[in-house]
Amino acid sequence: MSRAIPRPIYFFEETDGRDRALLGGKGAGLAEMTKLGLPVPPGFIITTDICEKFYEAGKHMPDGLMDEVRKSIKKLEGMTGKSFGGAENPLLVSVRSGAAVSMPGMMDTILNLGLNDETVEGLGKSTDARFAWDSYRRFVQMFGKIVLGVDDRQFEKAMAGANMNDEKALRKVAGAFKSLYEKGGKKFPADPYKQIELAIDAVFRSWSGKRSTEFRRQYGITPDMANGTAVAVVAMVFGNMGADSATGVVFTRDPVTGDKKLYGDYLTNAQGEDVISGKASPSHIDQMEKELPSAFKQLIQVCEKLENHFRECQHVEITVERGNLYVLQTRTAKMSAVASVKTSVDMYHEGLIGRTEALQRIDPEGLEQALYPRIESGRHRPIAAGVPASPGAASGIAVFDASRAETLAKHGNRVILVMKELRPDDVSAFRLCSGILTSRGGKTSHPIVVARGMGRPCVASCTQIEIDSEGKRFSIDGRVAVAEGQTITIDGSTGRVFLGEVPTAKSEITSEFKEILQWASEMKVIKIRANADTPENAALARKYGAEGVGLCRTEWMFNQHERRALFARMVMAESDAEREKALSDLELLQRSDFKAIFKEMQGLPVTIRLLDPPLHEFLPKEEDLMMQIFELKSEGGPKAEKGMLEREKMLRRVHELSEINPMLGHRGIRVGITFPEIYEMQVRAICEAAAELAKEGVRVEPQVMVPQVGMVNELVTARHMFESVKREVEHRHKVKLKMMFGSMIEVVRSCLLADEIAHVVDFLSFGTNDLTQATFSFSREDAEGKFLPFYLEKHILAANPFQTLDQKGVGRLMAMTVESARKVKKDMEVGICGEHGGDPRSIEFCARIGLDYVSASSHRIPIAILAAAQSAIRGSRVGGLSRFLAD
Amino acid sequence: MSRAIPRPIYFFEETDGRDRALLGGKGAGLAEMTKLGLPVPPGFIITTDICEKFYEAGKHMPDGLMDEVRKSIKKLEGMTGKSFGGAENPLLVSVRSGAAVSMPGMMDTILNLGLNDETVEGLGKSTDARFAWDSYRRFVQMFGKIVLGVDDRQFEKAMAGANMNDEKALRKVAGAFKSLYEKGGKKFPADPYKQIELAIDAVFRSWSGKRSTEFRRQYGITPDMANGTAVAVVAMVFGNMGADSATGVVFTRDPVTGDKKLYGDYLTNAQGEDVISGKASPSHIDQMEKELPSAFKQLIQVCEKLENHFRECQHVEITVERGNLYVLQTRTAKMSAVASVKTSVDMYHEGLIGRTEALQRIDPEGLEQALYPRIESGRHRPIAAGVPASPGAASGIAVFDASRAETLAKHGNRVILVMKELRPDDVSAFRLCSGILTSRGGKTSHPIVVARGMGRPCVASCTQIEIDSEGKRFSIDGRVAVAEGQTITIDGSTGRVFLGEVPTAKSEITSEFKEILQWASEMKVIKIRANADTPENAALARKYGAEGVGLCRTEWMFNQHERRALFARMVMAESDAEREKALSDLELLQRSDFKAIFKEMQGLPVTIRLLDPPLHEFLPKEEDLMMQIFELKSEGGPKAEKGMLEREKMLRRVHELSEINPMLGHRGIRVGITFPEIYEMQVRAICEAAAELAKEGVRVEPQVMVPQVGMVNELVTARHMFESVKREVEHRHKVKLKMMFGSMIEVVRSCLLADEIAHVVDFLSFGTNDLTQATFSFSREDAEGKFLPFYLEKHILAANPFQTLDQKGVGRLMAMTVESARKVKKDMEVGICGEHGGDPRSIEFCARIGLDYVSASSHRIPIAILAAAQSAIRGSRVGGLSRFLAD
Repeated sequence: MSRAIPRPIYFFEETDGRDRALLGGKGAGLAEMTKLGLPVPPGFIITTDICEKFYEAGKHMPDGLMDEVRKSIKKLEGMTGKSFGGAENPLLVSVRSGAAVSMPGMMDTILNLGLNDETVEGLGKSTDARFAWDSYRRFVQMFGKIVLGVDDRQFEKAMAGANMNDEKALRKVAGAFKSLYEKGGKKFPADPYKQIELAIDAVFRSWSGKRSTEFRRQYGITPDMANGTAVAVVAMVFGNMGADSATGVVFTRDPVTGDKKLYGDYLTNAQGEDVISGKASPSHIDQMEKELPSAFKQLIQVCEKLENHFRECQHVEITVERGNLYVLQTRTAKMSAVASVKTSVDMYHEGLIGRTEALQRIDPEGLEQALYPRIESGRHRPIAAGVPASPGAASGIAVFDASRAETLAKHGNRVILVMKELRPDDVSAFRLCSGILTSRGGKTSHPIVVARGMGRPCVASCTQIEIDSEGKRFSIDGRVAVAEGQTITIDGSTGRVFLGEVPTAKSEITSEFKEILQWASEMKVIKIRANADTPENAALARKYGAEGVGLCRTEWMFNQHERRALFARMVMAESDAEREKALSDLELLQRSDFKAIFKEMQGLPVTIRLLDPPLHEFLPKEEDLMMQIFELKSEGGPKAEKGMLEREKMLRRVHELSEINPMLGHRGIRVGITFPEIYEMQVRAICEAAAELAKEGVRVEPQVMVPQVGMVNELVTARHMFESVKREVEHRHKVKLKMMFGSMIEVVRSCLLADEIAHVVDFLSFGTNDLTQATFSFSREDAEGKFLPFYLEKHILAANPFQTLDQKGVGRLMAMTVESARKVKKDMEVGICGEHGGDPRSIEFCARIGLDYVSASSHRIPIAILAAAQSAIRGSRVGGLSRFLAD
Repeated sequence: MSRAIPRPIYFFEETDGRDRALLGGKGAGLAEMTKLGLPVPPGFIITTDICEKFYEAGKHMPDGLMDEVRKSIKKLEGMTGKSFGGAENPLLVSVRSGAAVSMPGMMDTILNLGLNDETVEGLGKSTDARFAWDSYRRFVQMFGKIVLGVDDRQFEKAMAGANMNDEKALRKVAGAFKSLYEKGGKKFPADPYKQIELAIDAVFRSWSGKRSTEFRRQYGITPDMANGTAVAVVAMVFGNMGADSATGVVFTRDPVTGDKKLYGDYLTNAQGEDVISGKASPSHIDQMEKELPSAFKQLIQVCEKLENHFRECQHVEITVERGNLYVLQTRTAKMSAVASVKTSVDMYHEGLIGRTEALQRIDPEGLEQALYPRIESGRHRPIAAGVPASPGAASGIAVFDASRAETLAKHGNRVILVMKELRPDDVSAFRLCSGILTSRGGKTSHPIVVARGMGRPCVASCTQIEIDSEGKRFSIDGRVAVAEGQTITIDGSTGRVFLGEVPTAKSEITSEFKEILQWASEMKVIKIRANADTPENAALARKYGAEGVGLCRTEWMFNQHERRALFARMVMAESDAEREKALSDLELLQRSDFKAIFKEMQGLPVTIRLLDPPLHEFLPKEEDLMMQIFELKSEGGPKAEKGMLEREKMLRRVHELSEINPMLGHRGIRVGITFPEIYEMQVRAICEAAAELAKEGVRVEPQVMVPQVGMVNELVTARHMFESVKREVEHRHKVKLKMMFGSMIEVVRSCLLADEIAHVVDFLSFGTNDLTQATFSFSREDAEGKFLPFYLEKHILAANPFQTLDQKGVGRLMAMTVESARKVKKDMEVGICGEHGGDPRSIEFCARIGLDYVSASSHRIPIAILAAAQSAIRGSRVGGLSRFLAD
């Protein structure tokens, strides 16, 4: 929008709401409402340009500004028929701040400006003496506090005990207030023009005050988004003129549920600050229909007009002065995710907005709220806070041992499992627990990834709590806080931990939600697959609209007790025969796992990742073994002796397999190459499952994916094995299998060699968790509990790269990979299966660089679908999904 | 060299030594020597092309070949005046293998071919009957064993006890040998043409035999280097014709020392196999002067001619037949590094070769031998083998505890420190130990890097040994092998461990070595700096020719006991005052450290890396603290109580700081950002040291380098601090400091953002250890003890990427970085300070992509200088150091 050379001051009726940067949000709203013919008190706006000039001049009022203000006040006098500083029927104004971006409560506002010992009498005459003196003492107090920095507590003290309904008492209070100025060496300015000059100066200054600077830093509001505040000078209307007056705040629809009915509070005979201060209890807005029927009728009309005009739910400030409604401010209402979905769909059906607009209004990230149980109110104080590792809230008794947790849960208890850190062995208990709390380990430890996959709320890396597993309790700051059996509540969406049971609200998939998802599915371009390791997860994902499984982690299948034992047997095998037996037992189990998942995903692709974690993860912990050996030693006897020897053998193997940096060790294809029998077993299980189902007529499309690939020769070796096993199974079953062989791209080197890799594979899938770790050289687990929060706070990093894809670094590697792989194979399927696959901003990036699909955890499929649709809408706006350029 | 359509067979005099691929090494040598007029017996060569055809035809003799052989034999009869299969004066030949690349002993050779019951009598008549029958029985045996696969042990059994000096006895043996053929269902072919056909067939077959295939796999001999063997058919000359005959092997110079005198052995009245089989004791070649003076004179002339012609030291096989010398083979001699240096310099002075050629002959990697003590002979059998972590050999008593090692060493013992793994705390003991042996931890654990920097031999990750620290012993395969006080010897160049004292040879820097280094320094282009953390190391590096310090690791300065304690105090500080006190004490120490190093490197740049390791490395180990607490607990009393509380506090801090993947944790700039006072202290110490020396007139050029950088904002923060500290010190001392501020490039993300980083820094330095780890997603420590050896053996990886830079992956990132940084700052200084800086192949790569310098450990400076010169020579050959292209 090209803009004429701006004037320093605009009256509301001289402009409209389009130039928020110049007028500020509040000013723009007032101008727009004036244009709509709504009952807005008259007034004018000093632009943000003037504020910029104020700062350019070293916090001095720009030359000539006050002349303009004087002229504008004169005009306002003409419009209201009142006189500024007049002894009769004086004009009072409010001086309000308002930047381009909403910064609620961060800057200053002064009401009732224009009062002094003379005008207060005039006001008293034209209205009511008690009201006039009440207004006066309010003004003296507010002006002293905000403009001249007089300590507010002194005012509170000075009016303590005074009868505020008595004019005389109020006169005394006003006098006492003024003498407080003098005590502080200050002077109350009687001249209203001096008052307004100081007030404007104060509002400008509040832009660079500590509170608002901090707010902008915290919310990332940069100068190009808002650079200074505008000042609105508005003729006062009074909600405190008696029982037919009121002040209130109204939402045009319910911001929690989205229901189409007014929502809000009002307070009769009061000014705005009384509502905010919470000194009085306001009434629900519905009451107004009875109490102030005419004003309420006006309100209904105003709200309708506002919604029809802005086509979004509005958050409106009103004042009723002697039965007449005035609107003092309007802004787009902040809605809960549920409400935002409902109002968007409703407004579509009301014909207010189109589907595209409806879709774009919803914050996909906020949808998590709608999908998981949440803490209902903010009143409860947490006892500790950790990393929000798996969303949702849950209450239950604290239990400090996985198997005990299982037992207690089986007996009908709701259980929160509290552990220092989690081992894969603990995973089988998760299904029975309501939630998980750990003092170590970040969001990406494998067990927590499982918890997230299962939808179990989890707070991780809560370092404030010191867990005493043996003592079955945890302490905070050295004092015991919670013992086994005590109820706690955790909120995995925020990372907070509460004592006792805090009420939680259930999740719900509303009909509006379903409708939105339907639209989104139709509009999106990139496909959405699910990370699903179990048939249940696969079924959930499909219900939500997933178009395949993008990541099935075979090792989670080992995590049930029996399977783990089998796997441990394989790792510990002393003879080939023993190892082969363990492997063939595992193969049978895996085959049935795969069959079940394939059946659920019939007709859709299922990408299976071969074994990824290091082998030692399947053996008991060193400490546990040592403890057992110690116990058996003191027990004695031949049986104990035997158990001891067995455990000592296992301990040696644990030592052999132990690693200094497990993330950088012997895992993935590196295990697949050195112990080829494991991958061969897994590929055979997949082929067998596919072959058996193919014979039953079930359409299956398995994609076998190799993790941790860094060298082309690793893939050559694996592909060779894959083809030979597949041929053998095809031959035996006399079927032709439709399968693909691909590589994860999660090692930096594989990005750099993508062209060579492309020759060997049918598809690629980014593992952006590991890739991010390798690109930054820090692990999520070690970073999130330590320096990462600090980095985010200090803006060294704009976002947590494990949550939102780092486009400059990791993203550049990804773009390079896609480009060089598709140079070799034009239609190479490329997807992403890291946790970024469920992050809206990351999904947009993935769409932009031309990925075929993102794979998100089953519970985040709706979020991913919505984000994909939004990304497609934005993409088509900027001229199609044009190929992303790295620089 | 363009080559005419090759013939299947060449006589020696028909060709020359140029086409080794066609003639094989042996054939080419014989042809070349014939051309030189040396006394070579006449003969011809069947080319390697024929061998290829043999394999193409499915291991069948190509059509027409035997006709050509017959023709050639006829010609040979004419040349020798003897007749093949003739009853009088029969022609005997040897049939010898020889590929383009030397594969000593891997393929077959048959001597005395042409003998049968008839020709043996003819040979006896024209020479001597005993000799004839000895030759016959040798032939029957050799032919049976090699061509027909008769078990050699049967031959040995059949001639046991026979008098080999008696003709009759030999006749019987020959008869017995032939009947052994029949026992096995085989037949000795009397027809010499049948003999030669079978022999050629056997030689061709031996190319694809298990031994030679394995050899080629192991040494990476690919078909483009050698594809099949040639066959040389040579008229026999006999070293076993009596006391005036002999066979021998001679080096034209001493291959161990390089001295210019003949070196070798000979055996009178013997054939080649007798020398090799070791059944008789040969005499030193000097003896020949007395024993066979005329032949010796000829030998001297032959060797001189060979050296003048080949201009390299030769390894020659000779036979003396009745006083006449024959040369049967010559090849370039394999020399020790010391000898190779000496002969190259000598030959330059003799006018045989130029400096460039001399320089190129030396294998820089081999120089390590010359720089470190080494195990003298290969006779000793190691008891275990680990990773060769720091070169050199050392003997000493095994001690299992660092402080005890220090004590024992102070009492005059030579000590080998044997530990499961090393902690920074152990480093102070290194200076007193002769060597280090660990059962865990690879080549790059920090303490081992220190050991290498100090030149202490070290064998790491020797997983075969099971260390029992408390029992002060280690066992192998469950049996106690070595207890404290027992002497062991380790060889850090090969990773081997020996029981007892194995003699070692000292290192020496000869005058020739110095001369070579001088030439190399003049010829190289890329600069060489040193990784040096102490003044001693810096002095050594400068002596060797280093042009600055490229990496001074400040944390090693903390590793002396007192400093570590100070650092621990800083980490544990509970009040700001306490922390500040510890920091200011550390600052004083660091300042004096830096001053000493700056003085040594006066006039040269010194790059100092700010603190890199995570803080927990400076605190005691968890296990140690727990043990101490346990002990104090059982001790009791108020003093123990106090110690216990202190340790419990420390344990809590250790837990707070502990990391799951320390390599990917809170370290480098991440510590520098979260604990800014540490980096500030270090920068101040550097500036103060520089300022004080500047005032003394010492020219210093410190370069401050930030490790682990992955984000531009990290550098912005650090540079801001750097500039403000520098300004402050400059102001206080009234000096202007010449300093640079730079970033390590060891995090993948910093490669991807090199352009942005370039704006903030004055120089870049690659840390390729960490960069390699991040690019491959595996750590050296976890890889080298586990899958990496397997990967190398199976050729999944061509080389250990931690030793030799991975050009395709890591190298590509480096090239990208250099290119994009220099787009921003054309003359940006870029170096490398990882351990690859000392690896010859990596140095060549660094030169090619335009790095300004490589920094190698002080002990490897000579190797680096030589490699740099060689790289410059090769570079100028291929048209200057043209910019490297990534693809």
